Amino acid sequence: MIQYPIPWPNGARCACAITFDMDADSLIHISRPKDSHNRLYPISMGQYGPMVAVPRILETYRRFGLKQSFFVPGWCIERYPGAVEAMLEGGHEVGHHGYLHEDPTAHSHDEQVDWFDRALAAHRQVGNTPRGYRAPVYNITQGVTDLLLERGFAYDSSLMGDDIPYLLDTAAGSLVEVPVHWGTDDWPPFAHYDEIGYLMPVKSPSSGLAAFFEEFEAHYEAGGFWHCIWHPFLTGRLARWRQVETWLESILESRDVWFATLGEIADHVRSISEAGEGTVRRDSLPYYTEPPSVTAGRRGNG
Amino acid sequence: MIQYPIPWPNGARCACAITFDMDADSLIHISRPKDSHNRLYPISMGQYGPMVAVPRILETYRRFGLKQSFFVPGWCIERYPGAVEAMLEGGHEVGHHGYLHEDPTAHSHDEQVDWFDRALAAHRQVGNTPRGYRAPVYNITQGVTDLLLERGFAYDSSLMGDDIPYLLDTAAGSLVEVPVHWGTDDWPPFAHYDEIGYLMPVKSPSSGLAAFFEEFEAHYEAGGFWHCIWHPFLTGRLARWRQVETWLESILESRDVWFATLGEIADHVRSISEAGEGTVRRDSLPYYTEPPSVTAGRRGNG
Amino acid sequence: MIQYPIPWPNGARCACAITFDMDADSLIHISRPKDSHNRLYPISMGQYGPMVAVPRILETYRRFGLKQSFFVPGWCIERYPGAVEAMLEGGHEVGHHGYLHEDPTAHSHDEQVDWFDRALAAHRQVGNTPRGYRAPVYNITQGVTDLLLERGFAYDSSLMGDDIPYLLDTAAGSLVEVPVHWGTDDWPPFAHYDEIGYLMPVKSPSSGLAAFFEEFEAHYEAGGFWHCIWHPFLTGRLARWRQVETWLESILESRDVWFATLGEIADHVRSISEAGEGTVRRDSLPYYTEPPSVTAGRRGNG
Amino acid sequence: MIQYPIPWPNGARCACAITFDMDADSLIHISRPKDSHNRLYPISMGQYGPMVAVPRILETYRRFGLKQSFFVPGWCIERYPGAVEAMLEGGHEVGHHGYLHEDPTAHSHDEQVDWFDRALAAHRQVGNTPRGYRAPVYNITQGVTDLLLERGFAYDSSLMGDDIPYLLDTAAGSLVEVPVHWGTDDWPPFAHYDEIGYLMPVKSPSSGLAAFFEEFEAHYEAGGFWHCIWHPFLTGRLARWRQVETWLESILESRDVWFATLGEIADHVRSISEAGEGTVRRDSLPYYTEPPSVTAGRRGNG
Repeated sequence: MIQYPIPWPNGARCACAITFDMDADSLIHISRPKDSHNRLYPISMGQYGPMVAVPRILETYRRFGLKQSFFVPGWCIERYPGAVEAMLEGGHEVGHHGYLHEDPTAHSHDEQVDWFDRALAAHRQVGNTPRGYRAPVYNITQGVTDLLLERGFAYDSSLMGDDIPYLLDTAAGSLVEVPVHWGTDDWPPFAHYDEIGYLMPVKSPSSGLAAFFEEFEAHYEAGGFWHCIWHPFLTGRLARWRQVETWLESILESRDVWFATLGEIADHVRSISEAGEGTVRRDSLPYYTEPPSVTAGRRGNG
Repeated sequence: MIQYPIPWPNGARCACAITFDMDADSLIHISRPKDSHNRLYPISMGQYGPMVAVPRILETYRRFGLKQSFFVPGWCIERYPGAVEAMLEGGHEVGHHGYLHEDPTAHSHDEQVDWFDRALAAHRQVGNTPRGYRAPVYNITQGVTDLLLERGFAYDSSLMGDDIPYLLDTAAGSLVEVPVHWGTDDWPPFAHYDEIGYLMPVKSPSSGLAAFFEEFEAHYEAGGFWHCIWHPFLTGRLARWRQVETWLESILESRDVWFATLGEIADHVRSISEAGEGTVRRDSLPYYTEPPSVTAGRRGNG
Repeated sequence: MIQYPIPWPNGARCACAITFDMDADSLIHISRPKDSHNRLYPISMGQYGPMVAVPRILETYRRFGLKQSFFVPGWCIERYPGAVEAMLEGGHEVGHHGYLHEDPTAHSHDEQVDWFDRALAAHRQVGNTPRGYRAPVYNITQGVTDLLLERGFAYDSSLMGDDIPYLLDTAAGSLVEVPVHWGTDDWPPFAHYDEIGYLMPVKSPSSGLAAFFEEFEAHYEAGGFWHCIWHPFLTGRLARWRQVETWLESILESRDVWFATLGEIADHVRSISEAGEGTVRRDSLPYYTEPPSVTAGRRGNG
Repeated sequence: MIQYPIPWPNGARCACAITFDMDADSLIHISRPKDSHNRLYPISMGQYGPMVAVPRILETYRRFGLKQSFFVPGWCIERYPGAVEAMLEGGHEVGHHGYLHEDPTAHSHDEQVDWFDRALAAHRQVGNTPRGYRAPVYNITQGVTDLLLERGFAYDSSLMGDDIPYLLDTAAGSLVEVPVHWGTDDWPPFAHYDEIGYLMPVKSPSSGLAAFFEEFEAHYEAGGFWHCIWHPFLTGRLARWRQVETWLESILESRDVWFATLGEIADHVRSISEAGEGTVRRDSLPYYTEPPSVTAGRRGNG
């Protein structure tokens, strides 16, 4: 079922990564800059992430001995340094996730460079040098991939081109792509955020989590890569996280899995590719240099 | 799983509160003021609350000996005094919920003060002095928290910053925050209200209620606080309420729970905090005094 | 659980009515009048109603000996007379449902009178004199209730003010209201109609129908009134209707139910009320004669 | 339950067709032509179709000996010829699906002819002569049906007028219609595509697929036609497809089904009709030559 299977370390049957994007209240500020500071409910909903959910998640990881990846906008690092320092102290990875969760497709390249570097500076402020990137709302552009290579990044995690990691070749070099997927993102089942234009029905914890657990079974059977894209203020809520924790415990006890940070996974994929131990899929950028023609004009005499 | 656990009265394992926001037909009037008076279906859908659901809910509470909280806009008190008087006669709490369910973020502070006091006057008309507040659409502002303290309120219930109650310190004093959460609000599973821009698929009674019951199990296990934010015209409908009633009966028989009004819960939290019997979490307002800078301008020579 | 219970004929425990609104392709024409005639897929989706679903539904009713109510826009009667004649020949009731499914709140009273009477003329053309009315999109207005009384109608079925039928008193006379509810309407679970601005996820037949069947159990227990508002092009689809049919068969065999047309139910309620055999709830119109004041202006010196 | 049953070849109880519309990234280009080339995530999400899902699907079909139909926009054939050639080499049918997934109702007839023929040219480039058509977003027009007949097509698969295939008669000739249905399309359960205005909650694989499997049971019982309209980037995802594969295997082992391409099914229906072996339903076009009058003007003295 998987065209370019990757042999995982120590013969593990399936690689696994839970990634948390800790956006906190950046979302309301970027969406409603005029009065977001006076919208206390969305702020508090976002702050639940760094203040309540992240300590809970880190405690679970500590108990299970897991090191996982977080993606945090630069502004959130400045605003909630304690949460980010706790991630780093716990041995987890903290990746680049923009400055204020700004959508790269909504800005010029110069603006984007500025946001990007401002975020990098925030990471460095807490002693972190991110090696991986996830675009806010997944909206990575060609310009950002170039920037990632210029800034020495090892991997991106914003695209949906495959089930398992692959290489992304560009003129300027090569990145590992650790792909995402809407079926393992927790916004569709759990987010309800009218203020930023995202109104989904909220699933019960068990019915919302069912999708993730079914995805695991399929990847485990196929020797693939189970990758969740979660958010502390959503899946880190008490009832949902308790079900995750119970499930995680049973998986760790009964299955042969390799839980790792995306950085470790990217490094593994890179080394497999370089050692020629497997055929890692390669994709090339740019996909396009200009928009496909969408005019229904008659061609020639046609 | 809970950072700042609160010891509940008499060693109860979990505090519980079902709160009903009785908005009646205020929603259609505030949303479509030009012709709402001629939109008979949304009016009747809202009136189901005070006329049909509230008597049903009060009867259940009476049978089970529960005292719970309601939040009612001032206009609804004036329009449906019988329903509110029945709440008060049953020993329940009636909190402040705006005048016509107006969104505080949509008005100037002066207008907001006017709405607020007009609502207070309506409460006093039926002999009620509200001690707690829930902002319409949860949209409490910094100005409203100041107003709550000026008017002598004990608690707010509009924020999502934690799983259990906490203290909200401001320059003007301190409120207890009794937090809410989209996962225990009945609009996502049951509301279908195109006229006010809220189109959700309607869940079956059992699948919609499942989320609330799963939340209870998690809070019960963690020694937390189970808090539902319901609406008479939604969860008070016959089939849904019958399932709630059956479930409530089994919980009351088999679990060690403390059902209380939000006022009682806020008082308990306040007294625990003052007696130093536990470390109640403290949050501070204002979160921000101005919008975070969201301009991608180059800083200095950067 | 029901404040004003109605004793049903022959001591039946629960009154039951499946009503089908046969809108056919009127919806696309009223929504997109400029090019609806060239939108073949929505036309065909709507025509599935009169051409495929109605014969199927009528056959089921015939086998089970049920007489039920349909509501059909006048234009649909003119366009699909065969389907309507088959309803009438089967002994079913055909109620008034506007002319082209026009929303009464979107038109002046004069226009509305014109639409209404044009629809009446279409009914008379097939020998039908409707005694009941359901407003398109439930949007009955005060003007339409007056019109119903002027035209001698016995009942309306557009409001949501109670679980069971009640009386609607106006200055001009009294109607029986046979109430509806979004929890027993099949648009939320089954409609997916982007062209008219209604995008819901489509439930599987069993999970979509679960809501209706749970509602039945609650009404049966309470001695109430189970009332489904369905549409041939949705619930009349093969897989959904097969599950309805199987369920109906088991209910008819095992329960003590009174399936009737809304006209029969309205007549029963009227006669119960007049005979003083029960206390039928009475509601009064107009709810309002003008919009509630929604200005936050200071009142007097307040 | 089926008015005009069709006898299937070799007495099979039910005809079955899984059709995949391989739209790849055409959707983002047609929706956001200005910057789609720089939106790498939607491009990669679409490319998952030809690059990952189609090989997986073809391998499953090969193992089970199935020949099925795909519909592919002309631009996708030019862009991903390998995927289309693999379909053709596997003996599958590749139908016409526009050029860049353009909506026929959004273009003049002349433009539409141009798009149509440009797509035809792309098909011919890979040696394919499509005999069937599915309109992008199902939006076939009267003009397109005429075009299908002019270009010698055998069938259309865009309408929802029945459960099983039927004939579509026009002044210019007759097409077989192989109908579709929103209840067996995988966009509602699985697509989440804000960039093109389609935000649905994402179901878990099992709960999303349940609708399709329930539909099968109903059609199998009724001797009908089970027809899924799927997309490689949705149902071809690892976890979903694995569940489909498992289910397919059990159906092929235990049931008496005829899996065929839509072309084979259309030919069968045509021959049944011509041989007089059954009464195939006939529908006639045009449905309308102009918009139904939707003015509420008074007619005559009425």
